[in-house]
Amino acid sequence: MSLLQSDLSKDLERISTNTMADLVEIRLREYLKKKSFLPGDALPKEVELAEALGVSRNIVREALSRLRMLGMIESRKKRGMVLTRPDILGAFERVLDPLIIDKSTLQDIFELRLTLEMGMADILYIRKTAKDIEELEAIAKREVKSSTSFRIENEIEFHGKLYAITGNDTLKRFQIMLLPIFGYVTTLEKEQVKGKITHLDLVDILKHGDKEAFRNGMREHLAPHFDRLEKK
Amino acid sequence: MSLLQSDLSKDLERISTNTMADLVEIRLREYLKKKSFLPGDALPKEVELAEALGVSRNIVREALSRLRMLGMIESRKKRGMVLTRPDILGAFERVLDPLIIDKSTLQDIFELRLTLEMGMADILYIRKTAKDIEELEAIAKREVKSSTSFRIENEIEFHGKLYAITGNDTLKRFQIMLLPIFGYVTTLEKEQVKGKITHLDLVDILKHGDKEAFRNGMREHLAPHFDRLEKK
Repeated sequence: MSLLQSDLSKDLERISTNTMADLVEIRLREYLKKKSFLPGDALPKEVELAEALGVSRNIVREALSRLRMLGMIESRKKRGMVLTRPDILGAFERVLDPLIIDKSTLQDIFELRLTLEMGMADILYIRKTAKDIEELEAIAKREVKSSTSFRIENEIEFHGKLYAITGNDTLKRFQIMLLPIFGYVTTLEKEQVKGKITHLDLVDILKHGDKEAFRNGMREHLAPHFDRLEKK
Repeated sequence: MSLLQSDLSKDLERISTNTMADLVEIRLREYLKKKSFLPGDALPKEVELAEALGVSRNIVREALSRLRMLGMIESRKKRGMVLTRPDILGAFERVLDPLIIDKSTLQDIFELRLTLEMGMADILYIRKTAKDIEELEAIAKREVKSSTSFRIENEIEFHGKLYAITGNDTLKRFQIMLLPIFGYVTTLEKEQVKGKITHLDLVDILKHGDKEAFRNGMREHLAPHFDRLEKK
């Protein structure tokens, strides 16, 4: 009997509570969609969900906890769990840690940055205001005076302001989130060569040039990074 | 006594298991970093973690379940939970559902698409091969023959191929993930105006033109979308 049991546990894989939570998570998502839940709507009680699904409350709690972590639902005093406007970048943020991301993904993300900065000219020119350009110029001028040891901080402040000018919150949060990775990739570079076009030059183009000129300026500014890509 | 209890429960907010799972999740992340866990390393057993943290196994299981959902750990037969190469886009994917994303975020994501496609010329020109261009041309030619009802499918196939040519897996997966949203935004547009530059024209530029020409071509191709942004 005990021999048979040990054979069985070799041959039959245990249905783990994780697998059950996966199933419950999917079932709950389908339910929320089918019933057209809107932000603010209250979910049925944990015990009711457990009964309807025929699983333990622990498993329902586990699945709800995942949806909560993704920002899809939240606890409200007296109302229980309610549907929220999901935070599409919140979950992404939790796994973006340069220490645990492999090299090829880091490289991918760095290229994503280059792509975004080359591509943002059109939206920048639609949204930029005189005040934005003034603030950007102040950042670029401060930087010229500061010592070279603050180079990464300067990069972050200047490019961060560009993302902010697009007025696109998702883009802006995306950039804030990717910053540790940009910093990490930058420290991996042996020689930090600057492009011929400086931050002050870019400000000047934003003031007096058109978006094609800005795109060409940004290409020159990022040239050392593109050169490295071409050598690979 | 029962009155006191009811007063207490009004004044003191209950420490929910969700809050506990948040704490345990953070504590586990710190532990994995401090101990420099590498992909493939096995985590301590659930019961050991529960003891060390002084919490119930259910709470540890809930926190582990979240890390598992984010693709940071996975169950391995006989080895228990092990650290994995995290899937940085996996979690993001789970909340990207046009039905539950609010309008302003949908708009942000659509602009993100425009930015990526305007910005990808440099990487496209570094990575493109003759075979890629041949495949892209086949897609554009098929499309000319097909009926207009397949317009969205054609868009997706052609632009998807462009992302694929960048050779950047993160960018490619990102695009696949954002597709439902692009589709959704497109269906919201009342009149679907095409840019003057067609997919076939873009292929022609990739064959005979330089990256500046491609960028200008893409700008023309996406012009109806940028026009809409400018009017807002």
